[in-house]
Amino acid sequence: MPKGVYKYMNREQFEIRTDLALEVREDIEKKGEELKGVRVSEEERYGGEIRITTVSIETEEAARTMRKEKGKYLTIEVPFVRWEGEEEQELVAGVVADYIRKVLGKEERKSVLVVGLGNRDVTPDALGPQIIDNLCVNRHLIGDGRRQNMISAVAPGVMAQTGIETAVLVKGIVAETKPTAVIALDALAARNIHRLNTTIQLSDAGISPGSGVGNHRHALNKGSLGVPVIAIGIPTVVDAATIVNDTMNRLVEAINSYEGDTFCGGYEMLTEEERRMLVYELFTPEWRGMFVTPKNVDETINNMSITLAKAICYALLGKNRS
Amino acid sequence: MPKGVYKYMNREQFEIRTDLALEVREDIEKKGEELKGVRVSEEERYGGEIRITTVSIETEEAARTMRKEKGKYLTIEVPFVRWEGEEEQELVAGVVADYIRKVLGKEERKSVLVVGLGNRDVTPDALGPQIIDNLCVNRHLIGDGRRQNMISAVAPGVMAQTGIETAVLVKGIVAETKPTAVIALDALAARNIHRLNTTIQLSDAGISPGSGVGNHRHALNKGSLGVPVIAIGIPTVVDAATIVNDTMNRLVEAINSYEGDTFCGGYEMLTEEERRMLVYELFTPEWRGMFVTPKNVDETINNMSITLAKAICYALLGKNRS
Amino acid sequence: MPKGVYKYMNREQFEIRTDLALEVREDIEKKGEELKGVRVSEEERYGGEIRITTVSIETEEAARTMRKEKGKYLTIEVPFVRWEGEEEQELVAGVVADYIRKVLGKEERKSVLVVGLGNRDVTPDALGPQIIDNLCVNRHLIGDGRRQNMISAVAPGVMAQTGIETAVLVKGIVAETKPTAVIALDALAARNIHRLNTTIQLSDAGISPGSGVGNHRHALNKGSLGVPVIAIGIPTVVDAATIVNDTMNRLVEAINSYEGDTFCGGYEMLTEEERRMLVYELFTPEWRGMFVTPKNVDETINNMSITLAKAICYALLGKNRS
Amino acid sequence: MPKGVYKYMNREQFEIRTDLALEVREDIEKKGEELKGVRVSEEERYGGEIRITTVSIETEEAARTMRKEKGKYLTIEVPFVRWEGEEEQELVAGVVADYIRKVLGKEERKSVLVVGLGNRDVTPDALGPQIIDNLCVNRHLIGDGRRQNMISAVAPGVMAQTGIETAVLVKGIVAETKPTAVIALDALAARNIHRLNTTIQLSDAGISPGSGVGNHRHALNKGSLGVPVIAIGIPTVVDAATIVNDTMNRLVEAINSYEGDTFCGGYEMLTEEERRMLVYELFTPEWRGMFVTPKNVDETINNMSITLAKAICYALLGKNRS
Repeated sequence: MPKGVYKYMNREQFEIRTDLALEVREDIEKKGEELKGVRVSEEERYGGEIRITTVSIETEEAARTMRKEKGKYLTIEVPFVRWEGEEEQELVAGVVADYIRKVLGKEERKSVLVVGLGNRDVTPDALGPQIIDNLCVNRHLIGDGRRQNMISAVAPGVMAQTGIETAVLVKGIVAETKPTAVIALDALAARNIHRLNTTIQLSDAGISPGSGVGNHRHALNKGSLGVPVIAIGIPTVVDAATIVNDTMNRLVEAINSYEGDTFCGGYEMLTEEERRMLVYELFTPEWRGMFVTPKNVDETINNMSITLAKAICYALLGKNRS
Repeated sequence: MPKGVYKYMNREQFEIRTDLALEVREDIEKKGEELKGVRVSEEERYGGEIRITTVSIETEEAARTMRKEKGKYLTIEVPFVRWEGEEEQELVAGVVADYIRKVLGKEERKSVLVVGLGNRDVTPDALGPQIIDNLCVNRHLIGDGRRQNMISAVAPGVMAQTGIETAVLVKGIVAETKPTAVIALDALAARNIHRLNTTIQLSDAGISPGSGVGNHRHALNKGSLGVPVIAIGIPTVVDAATIVNDTMNRLVEAINSYEGDTFCGGYEMLTEEERRMLVYELFTPEWRGMFVTPKNVDETINNMSITLAKAICYALLGKNRS
Repeated sequence: MPKGVYKYMNREQFEIRTDLALEVREDIEKKGEELKGVRVSEEERYGGEIRITTVSIETEEAARTMRKEKGKYLTIEVPFVRWEGEEEQELVAGVVADYIRKVLGKEERKSVLVVGLGNRDVTPDALGPQIIDNLCVNRHLIGDGRRQNMISAVAPGVMAQTGIETAVLVKGIVAETKPTAVIALDALAARNIHRLNTTIQLSDAGISPGSGVGNHRHALNKGSLGVPVIAIGIPTVVDAATIVNDTMNRLVEAINSYEGDTFCGGYEMLTEEERRMLVYELFTPEWRGMFVTPKNVDETINNMSITLAKAICYALLGKNRS
Repeated sequence: MPKGVYKYMNREQFEIRTDLALEVREDIEKKGEELKGVRVSEEERYGGEIRITTVSIETEEAARTMRKEKGKYLTIEVPFVRWEGEEEQELVAGVVADYIRKVLGKEERKSVLVVGLGNRDVTPDALGPQIIDNLCVNRHLIGDGRRQNMISAVAPGVMAQTGIETAVLVKGIVAETKPTAVIALDALAARNIHRLNTTIQLSDAGISPGSGVGNHRHALNKGSLGVPVIAIGIPTVVDAATIVNDTMNRLVEAINSYEGDTFCGGYEMLTEEERRMLVYELFTPEWRGMFVTPKNVDETINNMSITLAKAICYALLGKNRS
């Protein structure tokens, strides 16, 4: 084994960033580690066209292992990647609306603040603000006497634009406007390129804008905001490190299919942990802060924004609101 | 005199909206009313190229008469309407920066929240958000130990987009981020078309987003936010009613220059108050909520945004910050 | 009569700009002039909800009088001004699609170049470019062997951005890409405020970008481009002069309802022509180049863009294209 | 050596895309191939702060080997990556302006059409259109009698938006507007991540929008347009395949620094060609069409756009144009 790998052995684990609980769990399973306190269930709809996986992180220990907050993470996998047709959009909007209705409950009148996280000026990060642009905001239009649910919305921008932690901005707005629930929307990072623009993650565990994991101080969740938070996101980028990982995996396959003299005599004997270290070693620091995204990202973001805006409007105002 | 005029005599005064204290004062002077508690001073700079008028509303009574909050209103009139040249931009930025420095004082380190009011998607209303786009936000970059002033910024959107009173949003953000001062930027309405894009109003009296006058509950000022507020605005639109007023004034001129038989025998004998009523009478309700703006408004807004962003950066970070 | 009016008597007629043939005709009718060579027919659909008026300018003389090109001008008046509901949008899209199909004929495969005229950065002028953003462009996707119609699209910008007459740009693009027809989209100016955002004009007579009338050199029509041109537009602004006109008309009404001493003894006795001259006289030159538009213009433009994009896609690709 | 490598040996060479002649040449040099017909010269300015390399492809054979059109490719490498300060911007603008002046010559009055290639809605591809937004277009303002150079500009969009090959659109516009020269601006792809946003390529050899190499039919150059074409570009993205390549290179380094038992016994003995094949093998097809770009790409694009717009304005209208 190359020396370099040992150099980093004692460091904090090198993780390729993913915002999907589903992928975190897959990763832990691969390592062969036991994962207590996490329950997984699967469901299919529309003749298998849409697959829904629920990952429930039920204990603090599981949350630490997963590096995700305790709570339920629903993953909706859809078979289409361009979201173009109105029929596709309605299908997905319906499934997401069902989830929102279920989490928020039916009893009382709701006032929901929808927060569109992300940077409007960087296309793959514009999902949140673009959903806000398409939303059926009505809080200013309806009186106190009416029974209709109320929707308000903000797209607070990112820290590079405002100079302020986004979670702090949202906390201030929640404190002053007193919604009964918050829906936080964000573009996510996936590890698996097949999940780009094909997977929606819904969670009651909150979200940490612009952070990734472990930055609890700046999370948007029931603890920090005092009201239930539904986080909804779609992966629109992949961390550049993913490509390195992919490359090494394919290298191993190439080696394994090789029957002659030894090419790389050691890699296939490395443990999962050692392999991760090797990938870390091979990952040039310049790639940090870089993301990978497809060329036609503008169209996809646009279509997904329309779909998720519909989902929220259907959930809170009913389908035939217009 | 036409009957119709009398019909409205008892109504609340009909006012053509202006956000400029300078114009409110001119109006009152024209009516021949005495205006106690208002002091006016004028100053010229750069060989008369730039004229600065200060209107100080010093008593509560004057504030009621003027329908503006107590405080100082500085009006900078510039002789160029396109703001194109870098030299012009630097000149104006310098004058505005001087004012900001003077109001904020020099002693201690400042943390200023800059609020870009207005609707990014309606060109003449996009001045505030576009200034934010060009701003030297640095609050997230600099540590507590350093002595440099800090700038943070938000463009909160308008109520039609958020469903929330803008003043309420800003109040929440101020409460959570605790700046030492707020600079509120907005596109204004003028009454005089010659002031479109040629006049900057600076005030320590705060601002009421999207309201016009008399809506004190939703003002952004020291009273509501707890810190000094500098309001900076440029008129980019004119109320549609202004044109009606203009028309009537020109009609009077035409009549006065007419020497033959009586054309309009009465209008020139009307009092200022009666004329106002007549204009109100003639103003079709459909024109309410309409604004007048020039065709090339996109370019002008762009140039003015760059200039005001420079002014704020110069005032707080010094000129050679780059 | 005031002297001033005579001053301009010999000048070219002062006209308040309108791009709607319907309004030009109304105007001429008001003057009491005979209008030979113009045929008008009306039709109602959906139980009177939508009214369609066809103005056919059939002779060169009529074209000169109307100051519009020879051809058919269809005006669709819709009863809703916000275009919000999907149902409303589908209704209008269907009517417009019918018209496009009728003009283009059914026989052969079509390749249509859609031109979105106007300035993307000035909200009420962004209708054309925003329709292009929502369009089902497919020319690059489909092969020569297939029978589906082809759609291509350009948003060429305005002369202040390009330095080039828009008609010249389009001519070059048509010469090189050889479409079988052109659809030209533009935001229009109306004279009557009630037509703002409620009237669609469809015409086979072409369009002159950014010009108004009489500038034949720069028109987009069958003569200049060599292929049929369908012009589609919606008035989103009103000329500032319209307000002056409105004011004078209301002044006359006020006078007429006045029974006491003479207020304005002459205006009601003026001819239509003399009144026009008076309005011209009263119109301050500063208002030229100014337009009037409603505050929520961003939302309306957005909804209308989606509707017209649907109309074109339905007409050429069928309704269930997705 | 792994079998897989051989599988692709007969295929067309796998190339990681780069638009920089400088990188193509480096690559060929690495392979140890002889490169006839290519001349290279280097120059430093401002005390070494800015490095300029000129690659001249002088023969058809060299053009085939390099897969670039014959002509001169100037590469300006700047030491700053954020382009923030006005001083930095002026420095670079001056160097680029010098080049443009030199290529266009001084004698006669010029009419230059500036073409902003790329997709305005995908941030790293928006360089071209954003330069147009900041440009000093004047062709419509100045008369024939004057001696000032004329600038016109178009941002034609990309094929996914228009349905038309961009080169075809530009050809039509050139034919109709008859400029004396064309400046074509585009965001480029680099192979070396260090060249992202730090390298400007200037060339008299034209450019192929959206194509990469070898697609001569759709090039913008003197041959296709009939007038001199200056291509100016800055790499804003890196092909995803670059990361795979990087990874393998670092793997080799790791192996070479390893002194114990054989880890990868073969890779370091592979020829450059065999290594390229291995990288190709390891490159998952899903990554095709993906690009890598930094998170703060919006700011950088903005700053670079202002700088290049200045360069063009200075070159054609002189520095003190405002």
